Amino acid sequence: MTSSNVENTRPPNKHLVVFQPSGRREYFSSSQTLLDAAKELGVPIESVCGGERWCAKCKVIIERGMENLSPLTLEEKQLLRDEELNSNYRLACCSEIRGDVVALVPEVSKAAVQVVRKPVREIPVKLDPAVKKYYVELKPPSLQDPLGDLDRLLEALRDSYGLDGLNIDYSVLRELPSTLREGNWKVTVTVWDSREIIRVEPGLVKEAYGLAVDIGTTTVVGYLLELSTGKLVSVYSMMNPQVPFGEDVMSRISYTIANPDGLEKLHSKILTGINLILLNTARDAGITYDDIYEIVLVGNTCMHHLFLKLDPQFLGRSPFPPTVHRAVNLKPRELGLNMWKAGNVHFLPVEAGFVGADNVGVLITVEPWKKSEVQLIIDIGTNGELVLGNNTRLLSASCATGPAFEGAHMKYGMRAAPGAIERVKIDPDSMEVEYETIEGEKARGICGSGIIEAMAEMFKAGVILKNGNINKDLRSPRLRQGEDGYEFILVPKEETAIGADIVVTQKDVRAIQLAKGAMYTGAKILMKHFGVRELDEVVLAGAFGSYIDREASMAIGLFPDCDLAKVKAVGNAAGDGARLALLSREKREEAYEVAKKVKYVELTVDPSFQSEFMKSMFFPHKEDPFPHLNHLWDNMPKQQGKV
Amino acid sequence: MTSSNVENTRPPNKHLVVFQPSGRREYFSSSQTLLDAAKELGVPIESVCGGERWCAKCKVIIERGMENLSPLTLEEKQLLRDEELNSNYRLACCSEIRGDVVALVPEVSKAAVQVVRKPVREIPVKLDPAVKKYYVELKPPSLQDPLGDLDRLLEALRDSYGLDGLNIDYSVLRELPSTLREGNWKVTVTVWDSREIIRVEPGLVKEAYGLAVDIGTTTVVGYLLELSTGKLVSVYSMMNPQVPFGEDVMSRISYTIANPDGLEKLHSKILTGINLILLNTARDAGITYDDIYEIVLVGNTCMHHLFLKLDPQFLGRSPFPPTVHRAVNLKPRELGLNMWKAGNVHFLPVEAGFVGADNVGVLITVEPWKKSEVQLIIDIGTNGELVLGNNTRLLSASCATGPAFEGAHMKYGMRAAPGAIERVKIDPDSMEVEYETIEGEKARGICGSGIIEAMAEMFKAGVILKNGNINKDLRSPRLRQGEDGYEFILVPKEETAIGADIVVTQKDVRAIQLAKGAMYTGAKILMKHFGVRELDEVVLAGAFGSYIDREASMAIGLFPDCDLAKVKAVGNAAGDGARLALLSREKREEAYEVAKKVKYVELTVDPSFQSEFMKSMFFPHKEDPFPHLNHLWDNMPKQQGKV
Repeated sequence: MTSSNVENTRPPNKHLVVFQPSGRREYFSSSQTLLDAAKELGVPIESVCGGERWCAKCKVIIERGMENLSPLTLEEKQLLRDEELNSNYRLACCSEIRGDVVALVPEVSKAAVQVVRKPVREIPVKLDPAVKKYYVELKPPSLQDPLGDLDRLLEALRDSYGLDGLNIDYSVLRELPSTLREGNWKVTVTVWDSREIIRVEPGLVKEAYGLAVDIGTTTVVGYLLELSTGKLVSVYSMMNPQVPFGEDVMSRISYTIANPDGLEKLHSKILTGINLILLNTARDAGITYDDIYEIVLVGNTCMHHLFLKLDPQFLGRSPFPPTVHRAVNLKPRELGLNMWKAGNVHFLPVEAGFVGADNVGVLITVEPWKKSEVQLIIDIGTNGELVLGNNTRLLSASCATGPAFEGAHMKYGMRAAPGAIERVKIDPDSMEVEYETIEGEKARGICGSGIIEAMAEMFKAGVILKNGNINKDLRSPRLRQGEDGYEFILVPKEETAIGADIVVTQKDVRAIQLAKGAMYTGAKILMKHFGVRELDEVVLAGAFGSYIDREASMAIGLFPDCDLAKVKAVGNAAGDGARLALLSREKREEAYEVAKKVKYVELTVDPSFQSEFMKSMFFPHKEDPFPHLNHLWDNMPKQQGKV
Repeated sequence: MTSSNVENTRPPNKHLVVFQPSGRREYFSSSQTLLDAAKELGVPIESVCGGERWCAKCKVIIERGMENLSPLTLEEKQLLRDEELNSNYRLACCSEIRGDVVALVPEVSKAAVQVVRKPVREIPVKLDPAVKKYYVELKPPSLQDPLGDLDRLLEALRDSYGLDGLNIDYSVLRELPSTLREGNWKVTVTVWDSREIIRVEPGLVKEAYGLAVDIGTTTVVGYLLELSTGKLVSVYSMMNPQVPFGEDVMSRISYTIANPDGLEKLHSKILTGINLILLNTARDAGITYDDIYEIVLVGNTCMHHLFLKLDPQFLGRSPFPPTVHRAVNLKPRELGLNMWKAGNVHFLPVEAGFVGADNVGVLITVEPWKKSEVQLIIDIGTNGELVLGNNTRLLSASCATGPAFEGAHMKYGMRAAPGAIERVKIDPDSMEVEYETIEGEKARGICGSGIIEAMAEMFKAGVILKNGNINKDLRSPRLRQGEDGYEFILVPKEETAIGADIVVTQKDVRAIQLAKGAMYTGAKILMKHFGVRELDEVVLAGAFGSYIDREASMAIGLFPDCDLAKVKAVGNAAGDGARLALLSREKREEAYEVAKKVKYVELTVDPSFQSEFMKSMFFPHKEDPFPHLNHLWDNMPKQQGKV
């Protein structure tokens, strides 16, 4: 340690921690992590998950004293890359202080994170954003024409653009006299929804920005768009900062009920997250907060309530009524969002207690009401939502799938990050496993799309039976008894980056059975209500939906049989819907109409729910035929039998 | 002094002040007043005028040490009653500390003042307030009918009351789920302007309150009304707390220009004042802040801007455009008003830079657009406003009269308080003066109505000549040379409560000449613009207008000749207009229409302004005939000659 002064005052049983490059230092006791230490010292280290070992943002490089930290955790082995592990990287949240340490905070971990640019498809839409700019030149007042400032401006907007009956935001009114004179009576007026003047700027200003946000239970994605052109300017995605308070919707609702400040806390977490998205996308686009005029959000009903600080407790109890269905418009200042103060916050409407604005986003993207073909739209997230219908009517349902498809609760499940297994093939004869990982790195775990394929391949190879049991009779070195029952070795230790075999356990299979069974049951009950026996089309939505193998997902029975050519993935359609609504008032109108139109079906009260669910837990189903998968069954090992 | 401990630590040249009944004490130096001392010690003493010796609210009773205070001031002699003076009352703001003092703060001076109940006339109006309450009983949600809370409420309001397309205040939405359940799905909904739900309460609640406020430059009056019945519940009037920052409109505008925090300060002063009115009227009515849902305000354009925190600087410069003409609606929370948080603040529209919402209030009360007779409406306040017209058109003008008619700048001018001379008769032969004071107390000064009568009587008696000069040739013991030129003794010292003669000086006469000349000039120019030579009717508005003698005011030439039977006083018509707009949306609509319709005439740019003004300074006018006053002129002394 460099400072002998500090050394001399060492308290008993404390360890000196120094953060570089700032040089901030203090003594800490053994129960504390490096993240705790950084927080106490005010060293800015990013931590989206709040120390819950999820987000991998709090990377530090240990310059001295690696031996004085707790051993590397499984999470670190999964979340850190090889070259990072080899360069003495640790996650601050995972590293307990057991002796003196010098840690360097790399640029990437400091306060504001880089913006992740993703290739996002452009969506064709007729541009008609709610926020528009209008340039006007006014005649200055005179004794012959002493009309007041606002009234003068309104006359000009009416004469030049046919805008009539506009209101003005109070904060804008307050600045109007000085702005008009500063601009020498030539100004640009920003108008929201042909209703309200939300800004007046001196001179000519063309660009206006808006942010579309998809608040997922696990992931939050923001898309910054320039509104006059519709151009996508920046994308930023992050872990939902509420994750540490509960992984799924029900556990977050429970948190708000169990803790008096629970709603306040969860609300402020998501607010902080969205302010981070505003900050980062604005920075990336080289603009300021004040250039962002509107934010359009989608999310499930619980995310909706928590964002709007509406008590979600009744959402969690039968009959699950939301506080509000219709779209909500608010001023950013009412929530504390860092964007143009007089702008607008628009949350898309909610269909039902468990079919939220995210599903409305999916619907205005997929537009099932325009077709005569019967579509099943599956939005796979932490909560699964289904819509079935066509141009005659639309039914919706919600399935409590849990986060299994996102890799949670799987022994080696992980996020779709580098090193995650995403493709799996198993040779039914040799039991040899071929796999691919994201970015080709050494395997660290299995992400959602990998799990689906692993399940389908294990089923096809006879590793798991129709009822989900791992086939104990199978003789293979890949099969063994583990602590969670039988398990199948997908990747042996020698090939992984985590120093352990990556396996699929019996418990993992059960979790997938429950999740996919819930989805299938929902589809069946909706088909019964709609009165169809076959699906014309299946649409897989959700970021996850873009990556999973359509055949594999049908083979495990995620949804009923359908012509595979008619199964398509549309990616994050909820987020696309938010972008559409940001760019088009017509789309907002459609959202309003479709949210009213969709009829919600409460699955659990259907008398056939229990028996359907039991049958749907089988791979792919206990009795339903899958004619479009006949080519698979023909090649299956005998012990599985024909389906 | 009671405490020897305190005595022992006495600092040099300091005096001990003790306030009773609290017993708070401290040492103060000679330059400080008892009000300063109270403020420093946190002793709650009311002081509306901020120590400017106007409001007489800071009364204290000196228990010991009267000899240690500065001598009684003229203001105290005017503002304190005899029995108060005899009981050792002082005004804290006027009493400089020159030695040890024990002062008792009487109940009446403590923090919240009593509400002044005034007889206010009821105004007939078809009740249709913007704020209404609706009782609804909802069906609780069920699995068959899981509609969301707000949507359920909206359906019920539509079905029961035909209310459609309602919005809801965000803060109310947040509380909706718990309120509905607390009320067992039976609730009372408060709706603003058939547009927005501003409150939901469990069970049946009938009463809703609103406050109508007239913000005068000098006086602010609030009227609390129960909206479902229109009943006037309480009235509270106070000095405008901005008075210490400037007595008239222009000096307050100057204050905001000269001081960077000037607007903020004047805005917060009036806000505090109106919060005091809310507090006192609510307390008087036995209700809480939260029962007051709407506040409707009138005031001149400067008061309007300062209340709304709009920069008034351009109001003070040619061409004097206001920031906004149309009515402004705001949430109380945007200003910080202590009333129901989701209620509404409505400021009536403004006609022109110097013809404000107060004049609109007068117009919707007097309704000149309904008559074919040409009316001249004079609103006499610190600023004078004129409207001339009939059912064909309406012209308005503004006259800078200054506060002369309110008793300011007169040597013995005072507010209309007990002891103020309000009636004067002078015998032209004996020069004997008969007078009446408010509440019959010993004379302390002259209020506005007294000044008008004194001028008229002095003119009729030949004390002042047509050109305003005091007649030096007059031989009377009542006439003498004073420090402000010649002066006329209205009440000799022996009869007054202030130990001095109450006189009218040459300077006083000049101030009245300027004020009344401005009014007369305005009327003449408006008549020229309208194209009439005679007035059918004259309406005197303003609290002051109710008290002045109509004949006297015409005799001094406050307005052109008119049949005295057609001159009427309507009292505080601006405040009446605020009450009407609070009770009737139709009246608000009328206000909107009339504010657009009235054509503002800028008097100072009229080429005849200068010469008209010179002629209007004469009593009653240099050359205009006053046939309706012939009976007066016939009795006048010779030296005045016929008019």
